[in-house]
Amino acid sequence: MPFQLTTDFLQKIERLIAQRDGYALKDLLTDIHFADIADILEKLNSDEATYLIKLLESDITSEALTELDDDVREKILDRLSPKEIAEELSEMDTDDAADVVAELDEEIQQKVIDKIEDEELAADIVELISYDEKSAGGLMAKELVKVKETLNMAGCIREMRRQAKNVTRVHSIYVTDQQGILKGRLSLKDLLTAPEKAHISDVYIPKVDYVTVNTEGEEVARIMQKYDLEAIPVVDEEGILVGRITIDDIVDFIKDEAEKDYQLAAGISQDVEADDSILRLTKARLPWLVLGLFGGLGAVFIMQDFEEALENYAILFFYTPLIAAMAGNVGVQSSAIIVQGLANDIVKGSLLNRFLKELGLSLINGIALGLLVILINTIIGKPFDVSLAIGISLLVVIIIAAIVGTFVPILLNKHGIDPAIATGPFITTSNDIFGILIFFYISKFILGF
Amino acid sequence: MPFQLTTDFLQKIERLIAQRDGYALKDLLTDIHFADIADILEKLNSDEATYLIKLLESDITSEALTELDDDVREKILDRLSPKEIAEELSEMDTDDAADVVAELDEEIQQKVIDKIEDEELAADIVELISYDEKSAGGLMAKELVKVKETLNMAGCIREMRRQAKNVTRVHSIYVTDQQGILKGRLSLKDLLTAPEKAHISDVYIPKVDYVTVNTEGEEVARIMQKYDLEAIPVVDEEGILVGRITIDDIVDFIKDEAEKDYQLAAGISQDVEADDSILRLTKARLPWLVLGLFGGLGAVFIMQDFEEALENYAILFFYTPLIAAMAGNVGVQSSAIIVQGLANDIVKGSLLNRFLKELGLSLINGIALGLLVILINTIIGKPFDVSLAIGISLLVVIIIAAIVGTFVPILLNKHGIDPAIATGPFITTSNDIFGILIFFYISKFILGF
Repeated sequence: MPFQLTTDFLQKIERLIAQRDGYALKDLLTDIHFADIADILEKLNSDEATYLIKLLESDITSEALTELDDDVREKILDRLSPKEIAEELSEMDTDDAADVVAELDEEIQQKVIDKIEDEELAADIVELISYDEKSAGGLMAKELVKVKETLNMAGCIREMRRQAKNVTRVHSIYVTDQQGILKGRLSLKDLLTAPEKAHISDVYIPKVDYVTVNTEGEEVARIMQKYDLEAIPVVDEEGILVGRITIDDIVDFIKDEAEKDYQLAAGISQDVEADDSILRLTKARLPWLVLGLFGGLGAVFIMQDFEEALENYAILFFYTPLIAAMAGNVGVQSSAIIVQGLANDIVKGSLLNRFLKELGLSLINGIALGLLVILINTIIGKPFDVSLAIGISLLVVIIIAAIVGTFVPILLNKHGIDPAIATGPFITTSNDIFGILIFFYISKFILGF
Repeated sequence: MPFQLTTDFLQKIERLIAQRDGYALKDLLTDIHFADIADILEKLNSDEATYLIKLLESDITSEALTELDDDVREKILDRLSPKEIAEELSEMDTDDAADVVAELDEEIQQKVIDKIEDEELAADIVELISYDEKSAGGLMAKELVKVKETLNMAGCIREMRRQAKNVTRVHSIYVTDQQGILKGRLSLKDLLTAPEKAHISDVYIPKVDYVTVNTEGEEVARIMQKYDLEAIPVVDEEGILVGRITIDDIVDFIKDEAEKDYQLAAGISQDVEADDSILRLTKARLPWLVLGLFGGLGAVFIMQDFEEALENYAILFFYTPLIAAMAGNVGVQSSAIIVQGLANDIVKGSLLNRFLKELGLSLINGIALGLLVILINTIIGKPFDVSLAIGISLLVVIIIAAIVGTFVPILLNKHGIDPAIATGPFITTSNDIFGILIFFYISKFILGF
């Protein structure tokens, strides 16, 4: 059932654009969902996409614009006049309009805002772009249905019908006092099922979850998920209702955050996609690789320091990639679990408990792997003292890597730094060096070179 | 504003449970949201939690039970009789009830279903547990509001008021024909704003997105996100409306999927959390470490084969951890981008294009890093031929690691295997070995040992 964008269909569109056949294009694209129009726009070059945007009705194109990838949208908006941009904004929800305006260059921003005919919308946008984009204020939309608590149900339904025209989706009707302070809410279902003569003050639910404009986006996501909310009202410092956030915006937020964490863990430092340019991808990847290179050079210098062991214990040098890899793997495992735990707020208990648990876990893993490596070395006929040195080193390296992997994210988090950064090449690289250093010191101690 | 669970509060609850002071407990826990009750239950031991579940009203405890972590819920349900479980189920939405029943042992399942007094609920649960839990059928709930297209608005409102009592949230009213086949939908807003004398057939929206019971959960998530849907109807093979999926269930699904991918990338093979038992965490982590160990042993054997180079070119052995780490890092970067691209359906273009792009990208990174390593080696006074061998090897290793990292996930995906598995220790380990092998062969060729 969902629309499938085929190569044939796309080529047909490109041909019609080349022929400037607006009539046929409009006909072809009738009834196609704005999200699919957005997909089409992303496949076209910027000039073609701009032609389509100017051609189609702005109620469709405005929605399609909000769905576009930032880069694609930027290129199209560059080709539109402030007046044309303002027309698109007029059809958007306030939160989307504010996001688009926030992306524009500052000198264009004011020109575009000046061209918006609806003064209320212009004021809303100015208000919304003033908030931090990751705060509740930056995520919220101004569209909502609110009624004063003194109304009766008939008045409420009238008021709601009047306001609902501007609100795509009505989840709740918010109830305020005369000063606009949030008092409670009324679900649409309540409105439909309550007796017609009741007063709002009799039927509204006074307990309502809300956030303030300064609440961080992650906290909003956590509250909405935990309490299964589809929309949450946003109030200012005085408790006055100023907007609402809906779950679809939070879905995007959650997804973006998860992808960012995943990319950080993989050593990619910007929000990039498989289809981004080579230059952009290089900028996101090269810095982490340079970090890894310097880490590797650190290992080179450590091994040079132990060069005297080469003659009798060359095998130790053959084992360095294994030790480094195990240190890296254990560190990443430990930090990934902690990073997720921190994100989901389930890292409980004291630091001592956490330490003891990680110690126990790494003891089990370390002893199992240490014994395995001693066993294999014995089978292939290596001297026992060397095997023992390798096995014990592996155990110690695993324990230390696990503890570093656990506590670095916790420390970063305490200092307000995104702990996800620790799961990446950062912890792998430092564990590599530490691991090899520990390995040679322990071997030196046991084998006495 | 959100409830904060303090240690003091928790200790008070534990004390009251020990004293079996049900009256004081009920008083203390009045007005606390079920999601917070769930948090409290997770902090108690199983006996304490079971006492609370039996004490509190089942409209609260049933919701709290659905919010609990699987393990905690399982332990509590073990302590409840089939009749007590059935009572909790009666207060749940059908999708949550079916999830709980699906987790029970098979012999208990039937006993519990037999104890459910509401025959319709029992039948709904039996139907829902028959679907694959990751399909639309397994995600959907039976609660929805549906009306026949032949009704007028007054009849529709009556019908809706009757049905809405069982539905926590009404997003849309679904319109069916006499046979129950989905024809379209009517938003609550339409219902409130339409003239009262209109017929449903005049005002309903015939274009409605839907999925079938067999649609995969990931596809449902993709459609709901793409089209910003808050609920989607589910039909069976004949087009008959059988349920609906709401966005809050999909939020959990998206989050779970993202976390699973993240854990796979970090070498953790089960769905575990920081607070799980040591044994469970070990089971999720040890297998990957064993894989890493064998990879490391592979590297040991390769280096043994090149032992004759030790005398003149010991420095090559010092560089193996660096080469292995770079191969691993590049491989993980490449595969992470592809895995995300595959998940978001943005890996477009031909395989040749993808190959050329990855080749270009890794050429840039490889040449930059290769030159850097040659430069550093020259500064610290290493022979130029050795530095050149290392630099060129690094370039080749980076190119191959990038291509392996890109195409392994694509191949896995083509064969229906979760590509996320490739980002983890699997690709790191194989790239480590490949990298070291390539490194020694190229060095041998250049240096002629």
